[in-house]
Amino acid sequence: MRINNAQISAHNELNLNLHTRQFALFSEHLEQKGIDSDNLISQINALQVAIPSWALGTGGTRFGRFPGGGEPRNLEEKIDDVGLIHALTKAAGAISLHIPWDIPKNPGEIKSLAASHGLIFDAVNSNTFQDQSGQLHSYKFGSLCSSDDNSRKLAIDHNIEVIEYGKQLGSKSITVWLADGTSFPGQANFRHNLFRTRDSLKEIYQHLPADWQMFIEYKPYEPNFYSTVIQDWGTSHFLAQSCGEKAYCLVDLGHHLPNTNIEQIVATLLGIGKLGGFHFNDSKYGDDDLSVGSIKPYQLFLIFHELVWGMANNEANNPPIAYMIDASHNLKDPIEDLIQSLEAIRIAHAKALLIDHQALAEAQQNHDPALAQEILQEAFQTDVRPLVREARLRNGAALSPIDCFRELKVRENLIDERGKTTIATGL
Amino acid sequence: MRINNAQISAHNELNLNLHTRQFALFSEHLEQKGIDSDNLISQINALQVAIPSWALGTGGTRFGRFPGGGEPRNLEEKIDDVGLIHALTKAAGAISLHIPWDIPKNPGEIKSLAASHGLIFDAVNSNTFQDQSGQLHSYKFGSLCSSDDNSRKLAIDHNIEVIEYGKQLGSKSITVWLADGTSFPGQANFRHNLFRTRDSLKEIYQHLPADWQMFIEYKPYEPNFYSTVIQDWGTSHFLAQSCGEKAYCLVDLGHHLPNTNIEQIVATLLGIGKLGGFHFNDSKYGDDDLSVGSIKPYQLFLIFHELVWGMANNEANNPPIAYMIDASHNLKDPIEDLIQSLEAIRIAHAKALLIDHQALAEAQQNHDPALAQEILQEAFQTDVRPLVREARLRNGAALSPIDCFRELKVRENLIDERGKTTIATGL
Amino acid sequence: MRINNAQISAHNELNLNLHTRQFALFSEHLEQKGIDSDNLISQINALQVAIPSWALGTGGTRFGRFPGGGEPRNLEEKIDDVGLIHALTKAAGAISLHIPWDIPKNPGEIKSLAASHGLIFDAVNSNTFQDQSGQLHSYKFGSLCSSDDNSRKLAIDHNIEVIEYGKQLGSKSITVWLADGTSFPGQANFRHNLFRTRDSLKEIYQHLPADWQMFIEYKPYEPNFYSTVIQDWGTSHFLAQSCGEKAYCLVDLGHHLPNTNIEQIVATLLGIGKLGGFHFNDSKYGDDDLSVGSIKPYQLFLIFHELVWGMANNEANNPPIAYMIDASHNLKDPIEDLIQSLEAIRIAHAKALLIDHQALAEAQQNHDPALAQEILQEAFQTDVRPLVREARLRNGAALSPIDCFRELKVRENLIDERGKTTIATGL
Amino acid sequence: MRINNAQISAHNELNLNLHTRQFALFSEHLEQKGIDSDNLISQINALQVAIPSWALGTGGTRFGRFPGGGEPRNLEEKIDDVGLIHALTKAAGAISLHIPWDIPKNPGEIKSLAASHGLIFDAVNSNTFQDQSGQLHSYKFGSLCSSDDNSRKLAIDHNIEVIEYGKQLGSKSITVWLADGTSFPGQANFRHNLFRTRDSLKEIYQHLPADWQMFIEYKPYEPNFYSTVIQDWGTSHFLAQSCGEKAYCLVDLGHHLPNTNIEQIVATLLGIGKLGGFHFNDSKYGDDDLSVGSIKPYQLFLIFHELVWGMANNEANNPPIAYMIDASHNLKDPIEDLIQSLEAIRIAHAKALLIDHQALAEAQQNHDPALAQEILQEAFQTDVRPLVREARLRNGAALSPIDCFRELKVRENLIDERGKTTIATGL
Repeated sequence: MRINNAQISAHNELNLNLHTRQFALFSEHLEQKGIDSDNLISQINALQVAIPSWALGTGGTRFGRFPGGGEPRNLEEKIDDVGLIHALTKAAGAISLHIPWDIPKNPGEIKSLAASHGLIFDAVNSNTFQDQSGQLHSYKFGSLCSSDDNSRKLAIDHNIEVIEYGKQLGSKSITVWLADGTSFPGQANFRHNLFRTRDSLKEIYQHLPADWQMFIEYKPYEPNFYSTVIQDWGTSHFLAQSCGEKAYCLVDLGHHLPNTNIEQIVATLLGIGKLGGFHFNDSKYGDDDLSVGSIKPYQLFLIFHELVWGMANNEANNPPIAYMIDASHNLKDPIEDLIQSLEAIRIAHAKALLIDHQALAEAQQNHDPALAQEILQEAFQTDVRPLVREARLRNGAALSPIDCFRELKVRENLIDERGKTTIATGL
Repeated sequence: MRINNAQISAHNELNLNLHTRQFALFSEHLEQKGIDSDNLISQINALQVAIPSWALGTGGTRFGRFPGGGEPRNLEEKIDDVGLIHALTKAAGAISLHIPWDIPKNPGEIKSLAASHGLIFDAVNSNTFQDQSGQLHSYKFGSLCSSDDNSRKLAIDHNIEVIEYGKQLGSKSITVWLADGTSFPGQANFRHNLFRTRDSLKEIYQHLPADWQMFIEYKPYEPNFYSTVIQDWGTSHFLAQSCGEKAYCLVDLGHHLPNTNIEQIVATLLGIGKLGGFHFNDSKYGDDDLSVGSIKPYQLFLIFHELVWGMANNEANNPPIAYMIDASHNLKDPIEDLIQSLEAIRIAHAKALLIDHQALAEAQQNHDPALAQEILQEAFQTDVRPLVREARLRNGAALSPIDCFRELKVRENLIDERGKTTIATGL
Repeated sequence: MRINNAQISAHNELNLNLHTRQFALFSEHLEQKGIDSDNLISQINALQVAIPSWALGTGGTRFGRFPGGGEPRNLEEKIDDVGLIHALTKAAGAISLHIPWDIPKNPGEIKSLAASHGLIFDAVNSNTFQDQSGQLHSYKFGSLCSSDDNSRKLAIDHNIEVIEYGKQLGSKSITVWLADGTSFPGQANFRHNLFRTRDSLKEIYQHLPADWQMFIEYKPYEPNFYSTVIQDWGTSHFLAQSCGEKAYCLVDLGHHLPNTNIEQIVATLLGIGKLGGFHFNDSKYGDDDLSVGSIKPYQLFLIFHELVWGMANNEANNPPIAYMIDASHNLKDPIEDLIQSLEAIRIAHAKALLIDHQALAEAQQNHDPALAQEILQEAFQTDVRPLVREARLRNGAALSPIDCFRELKVRENLIDERGKTTIATGL
Repeated sequence: MRINNAQISAHNELNLNLHTRQFALFSEHLEQKGIDSDNLISQINALQVAIPSWALGTGGTRFGRFPGGGEPRNLEEKIDDVGLIHALTKAAGAISLHIPWDIPKNPGEIKSLAASHGLIFDAVNSNTFQDQSGQLHSYKFGSLCSSDDNSRKLAIDHNIEVIEYGKQLGSKSITVWLADGTSFPGQANFRHNLFRTRDSLKEIYQHLPADWQMFIEYKPYEPNFYSTVIQDWGTSHFLAQSCGEKAYCLVDLGHHLPNTNIEQIVATLLGIGKLGGFHFNDSKYGDDDLSVGSIKPYQLFLIFHELVWGMANNEANNPPIAYMIDASHNLKDPIEDLIQSLEAIRIAHAKALLIDHQALAEAQQNHDPALAQEILQEAFQTDVRPLVREARLRNGAALSPIDCFRELKVRENLIDERGKTTIATGL
């Protein structure tokens, strides 16, 4: 199923009067503050978030999985699903491929298919956290860190191969997330693991095309439960420094210990020009991979404040950040879940754009935390949904993507097309 | 494969001289303190820990699973594996069944098989956290708490059925662990969920034989990531109170928020006579389900201190506690892992038995925390392994179960018998 | 300094046009949804939050304190400060007294003074976490839990005395917060501590007037760092049950382990009719005592959702909840900080009042978490500040209390009156 | 009061027979494993831990302080107290000075006094977390990070002054711990704060003598409760790199978020040659500053394993680590508390020295986590107290320092000398 412009227009038509009135009031409100709403809308629409190819199916936990229906059965159908999301939101203009779950058999055709949805290929993702059927050397005890040269070589070669696939699709970056670590004290030597990982990454880095970037992701635990080789941004930064200028850190919101001040990490990495990628999700306990903004929307706003201000004051020449949603859709319809995540991102971004940076800088200089809080709250409390909707309207997307998705009975259609018991490839 | 007495004896023979000398010194050391080693050994051997039927296979995470070889293919082989563990340790004299993964087709034969290994059947476990193939009403959005009467009834009936299976095998208790909860704010009404769960439990409780107990387990999160219906001991206690005298709380070491003082919960529940079951494992981050004592052995010792003192001063008539190991064996050989867990339990128990309660009570009365710490450390720093080995020796178990397991090439034998790629039924 | 109606009116005059237009739009928006704004405003204005007598001075940490100026020098000036806050906000119509820091020498005069500000006396607070100068028996090792009968008796008598002070002022409840606990394993016997605390509370309870309530506060750690006698709501509930019908639990937002689902605790306690008091603050790490809503405004909204729905569906006859702000003002002007906290409470309350309970109940029944999230977000994203301002306007308070505070140069006036280096009595 | 050799000898005499027999058995046990006990003892005795000058008085929390008696009234008496500890343990051969609490008026005399106790001066500590009486520019909103040039200059000058004091006493390093941070989102600009801190540290670094080191401490929160400028080792490492070769990171055990794998951080910093200082304490919740080893002795052992192995395989030329105990003695006698901490350090160190590194390396290479655990447990379960006592005996210290302290009625003597209500200078 594809959603065409006529369907979007029909949906928008129904809500247009109300929206027009609301947006008029909102833009008047902005005008009074001397803010140009057109400029805001350009910035909002410029932020495009990649959808990973593994996100279109129902996720699960170690305790099981409750599949929904109409899940995509192959890469083509996954791209179609991202296409649906992008048609509804015009906020998800990229797809992030996972290898080996989604190896493109015919890269040219896959690229055309994506292009037909207005999608490009963002970072490619390697997978060394599972053994593939028939794999000669296991990753059970590590991949890039492995003390077993064979496993290590396999993992390096796999990453190089992933770069090759990416080149064929027009990707410009590879994301390395390592499950490597230990579940028991003494299981491995921390230093050896770290240095072997560094050496492996450097080898992969040698195969990076000149215009590519490597993103090094960190995570404190899971699937290993005593230690992870790249446990925090400090380790990721050490490795990126070791590799070279094209290596950057990747921040995933769920990959932090309880109470971590993530916005400060974002500010630090941007300040030193080493923030390459950013994975959105939300969580209350660990790497819960819930819908973006569903648990801690204020934290998301504070992070966007750092992203907005940081890129606007980009003294360290940080490259444009590769944004992706990395969540698990265990209970909600995956497409609806991604739409809600995109909406939360848009809202947080729009609110961050409203922050009066000059007034804030003055309050900070005057050591006036009460006023600084008022300035942040002024932006956060503002209902920016008219602005976000207008941004979509101007881009040909749906005023309310989730309503439109339901009105068009997209899932029902997908079930008709694909069946009730399909299972997305991958996890 | 079975391990016979002769094999155990042969192993013990080799290490007997060294052990005899070490134990002589140790018991002399105890004598000087006026402690009777025979008495300690009786207490150590009296503590038997159940092995759950799902623990004999390789565990996994949502990111995958790296199976080992020789895993049990059916309930009979699972019982055989527990039998191996018990032969080596004489510490695991019970098996805790999981329904529906391990439904006994012929209960009489299963009971005989277990008896031939010296095993009895401890608490039976229901499973409403997964849908079984062909299940008419899903547990995706809850079981005993469900707002869907059909799902709720199914879950109640399943628990009643589990009691029936247990009766046939001689079990005297049922453990109810609920995955029920929500992953998003607003997904369900907290109060309705709680009260429906209460009503469901009361219905199951009606079917509890007069000499049975019901254990109500709590857990703060996972597999749901916003809330769990029975999130803490307070909720478990409220439900147990609502059901009646035969309902008790069950503490699982891994089911707590970061930094929880678990030993205090144990003390409280024992003090009010409501501690029914106890699940051992260890963890650093969440419900990591690692080998007992592998991460926080001092916490384990402090918990055993509460268990030992609490049951010795059992004013509230708490029933004997049902002990079980509830861990996941993702990287180690499951049998070795369980042997190490049993050893850690034995060591913590033995050390707790060495605490000088009278001196401690005096230090407490005198508000002398430094001395209290000395008293605990005196017990904890003592190397009790000779005592633990002697307890095994007297019971016909191996001086060093893990060495014996490796010497006898048990896993190699099991692989020969069962094959390299078998997968344990269940998760 | 007192703020009079004319000053408030002058401030409001300046902002009235803008407000009137904004509120008109907002109430029109409500009307379209069939919501009566007058009714909302009544509910908003009905929620009054007590200010504790220790909150008017600069707070500190164990590392020190950076005092501001113009701090109140005695109880009278503290009441004046609460009067200022109430004049500006009409949201803080009560004061919560701390004994012995703020013993009223002449209760009648103190009561009159408070009444002249429109203030009543809410729960009185006892203090057994510090030794007072010349105190014969120390609380160093516990108060109501103490193994020292003298200390325990002193603490009981102190609480009874606090009730007496409260009676003179018209209070109807006492809040018992205990620092009692241990900093080292073995320091005390958990069970004895718990049962002595229970017995002490029961003794105090005997002295509770018929129309009074006792609130039992819990906290997992600090100032003790290994255990707290009343570590969680389960323990608090056990104690309240032991005392009787007039004993209730008190929830303080900062008194939870990392990641605790506090809104669920609120729902549970309301569901069983045992939520007596509620202390507002915010925190990122521990009991940080920051301005309400400054860190986790969405959590605050979710909690208010439970409070609003719970009291509207009060099947268990929970009494009206005693609300108080319990924060520490280390960096901000205490009065400004409290004003910001009151604003955050008003906003969260107003948003919670906007939740469409019927639609939510349907989404819950239909197992539609995506829709449930939309319903919550619809309320949360709404900019309710016009409504909150109108509520103040109708009550004779300032449209923008913090602006009014600054325009009137209240702090500068207080410094003139009281000096730059005064220190509030108490901590 | 001083403790002389005769007093130590008399104490040892009483326990010598038992000890001699126990140590003989222990060293025989070592011999059988091919371990040279003399070598172990040298290593144990070589590890000397500094006592900070602020540790000799009773500590407190923001809720108050329960002073003991006989606290040192000035720097001289603090040095005397460290002398007492060193006489009893011969494990605390250094004192770490805090400026401005303990400014030596006559450095020569102070140095002589320390030397008379066998003490040297380890790292000096600056204090910019408090305003001193009459201070012209406040640190309320930051010191080295301050946006106020005056405050920032004051803090830089203070650190330079601290170096000067240190030079006079023979110190070779300065520890910079910054309380700088924010308690509210928006209060300061993360990047500006970080870069100003970097620039301030670089300025201080310019004044570092050629043979000195600078230690940069990190901490995630407290006394600020939203962010700390140097929140983690990654930030500390960035700053140390920015300053130069003589700048190193300092790890304080209590300065980590819940569940942090600290031993891995130690391994990483040692692996890259940047671990300068290490502060011992223990904690369950936050920076609880409890006695070393009183809560998590196994973690301490694992950390010592990294320290021992890391320094024995010091490929990155990490300098000798400056060890210090940084705890708060709120309930115990400070001297007893420090003695217990030193004992826990000695025990953890001795156990770590027993780890069979070769066998462990093989188990790691063979991916045998069960065996690796056995190897660690073999060391950890060993009762090394005879070895630790022998190390003390050979060094002229007390077999049981805490017993000796009590036998000699040291505290009673100090109370006689100094009075019951003295308060240590500083906090």
